[in-house]
Amino acid sequence: MTTGVRRRMGVDERRQQLIGVALELFSQRSPDDVSIDEIASAAGISRPLVYHYFPGKLSLYEAALKRASEDLAARFVEPHEGPLGTRLLRVMRRFFDFVDEHGPGFSALMRGGPAVGSSTTNALIDSVRQAARDQILAHLGVQEPPARLELVVRSWISLAESTALIWLDGRRIPRAELEKQLVHDFAALAAVSAAYDEEMGALIRTVFKDEPADGPFADLVGRLVALAS
Amino acid sequence: MTTGVRRRMGVDERRQQLIGVALELFSQRSPDDVSIDEIASAAGISRPLVYHYFPGKLSLYEAALKRASEDLAARFVEPHEGPLGTRLLRVMRRFFDFVDEHGPGFSALMRGGPAVGSSTTNALIDSVRQAARDQILAHLGVQEPPARLELVVRSWISLAESTALIWLDGRRIPRAELEKQLVHDFAALAAVSAAYDEEMGALIRTVFKDEPADGPFADLVGRLVALAS
Repeated sequence: MTTGVRRRMGVDERRQQLIGVALELFSQRSPDDVSIDEIASAAGISRPLVYHYFPGKLSLYEAALKRASEDLAARFVEPHEGPLGTRLLRVMRRFFDFVDEHGPGFSALMRGGPAVGSSTTNALIDSVRQAARDQILAHLGVQEPPARLELVVRSWISLAESTALIWLDGRRIPRAELEKQLVHDFAALAAVSAAYDEEMGALIRTVFKDEPADGPFADLVGRLVALAS
Repeated sequence: MTTGVRRRMGVDERRQQLIGVALELFSQRSPDDVSIDEIASAAGISRPLVYHYFPGKLSLYEAALKRASEDLAARFVEPHEGPLGTRLLRVMRRFFDFVDEHGPGFSALMRGGPAVGSSTTNALIDSVRQAARDQILAHLGVQEPPARLELVVRSWISLAESTALIWLDGRRIPRAELEKQLVHDFAALAAVSAAYDEEMGALIRTVFKDEPADGPFADLVGRLVALAS
């Protein structure tokens, strides 16, 4: 390799490199604490050259967040095979992998980071929530959800976000336990809704009827019945 | 009354009046869409005089949010009498009263309004969450919560926020149903945690042992057992 390598990097390739470098730094520390100088230094280029590709830290932050959002949305994609509880558990594992990899950046973003309130940032967060919602409804086999199912799915996604944020704040509970707990929480929120609404009742009976006796949902029901008695 | 009334209004009184007027407007429409001119007009004073009391819209917004935060935090205060489920239900009714009164302002704030990301705004939101957490732990009779109980309480508060936001987006489900559902969700999240952790199990058996057979928790358990069988 010669020093010519650096000069041969095209505009898009350089932008992608800077996004990668910035994302790595934003994942390790709060984006507020990462300077353009550090990003330039980590990328091996000058500070003015960074500004040549991105007019300011916000635009680089938004580009990094866009890549992270696409990555996170992709983790909700799961083959439609096998019991639902097992599928959800795999999704939750990949979700916590992401949260683990991007801890400080994820916290800063969700708690109100430097770019929160920018319409681009909010749209990216919403796009991930929407992708997660669409995937879950597809697994439930529902295209046009009734209002109560929509509420269960969307509020569960928000529960997964807050559980991950609370986990990052000290990591006092093993993440594997929380991944399983969130799968159970989904069943619990659906069951609470189904307990008082016939449409939801019919829906979750259909969805859960093929869950195996040794799967996470059946295990939970057994334990809850024992707890209630 | 004479026109002298207006001149006699002291600095603090005038500030409180402007906060009240602004809060009213911020509650009816997204704060982004409310101008200083409108606030001046609604308060019956000139635009420059508004700026005399508040240097900019952000400072007036933060003052209004501070009053709203204190109001909301106070709604979580509930006498320590009677069954826990009934207490929680009263708290949820007052919470939805607040959300109902301040709909557009609440949505804008929680979805990323004009001042989101300001340290003052974030601190006010956190102070309400903290007040809610402290009240709930006091009702549970726990001073130093184990990590799993802390998680249940904090994640349930976030669930209440997201449920309220989803409700405001179309109001497709009667709010009384959601108030009750959130009380049930609390029991469900606690039960899921208790199903896999002995400390949580002992705790919720103690907390729920005095719940009456016709209270919201007992009703839920009966319905869930029926659903699971």
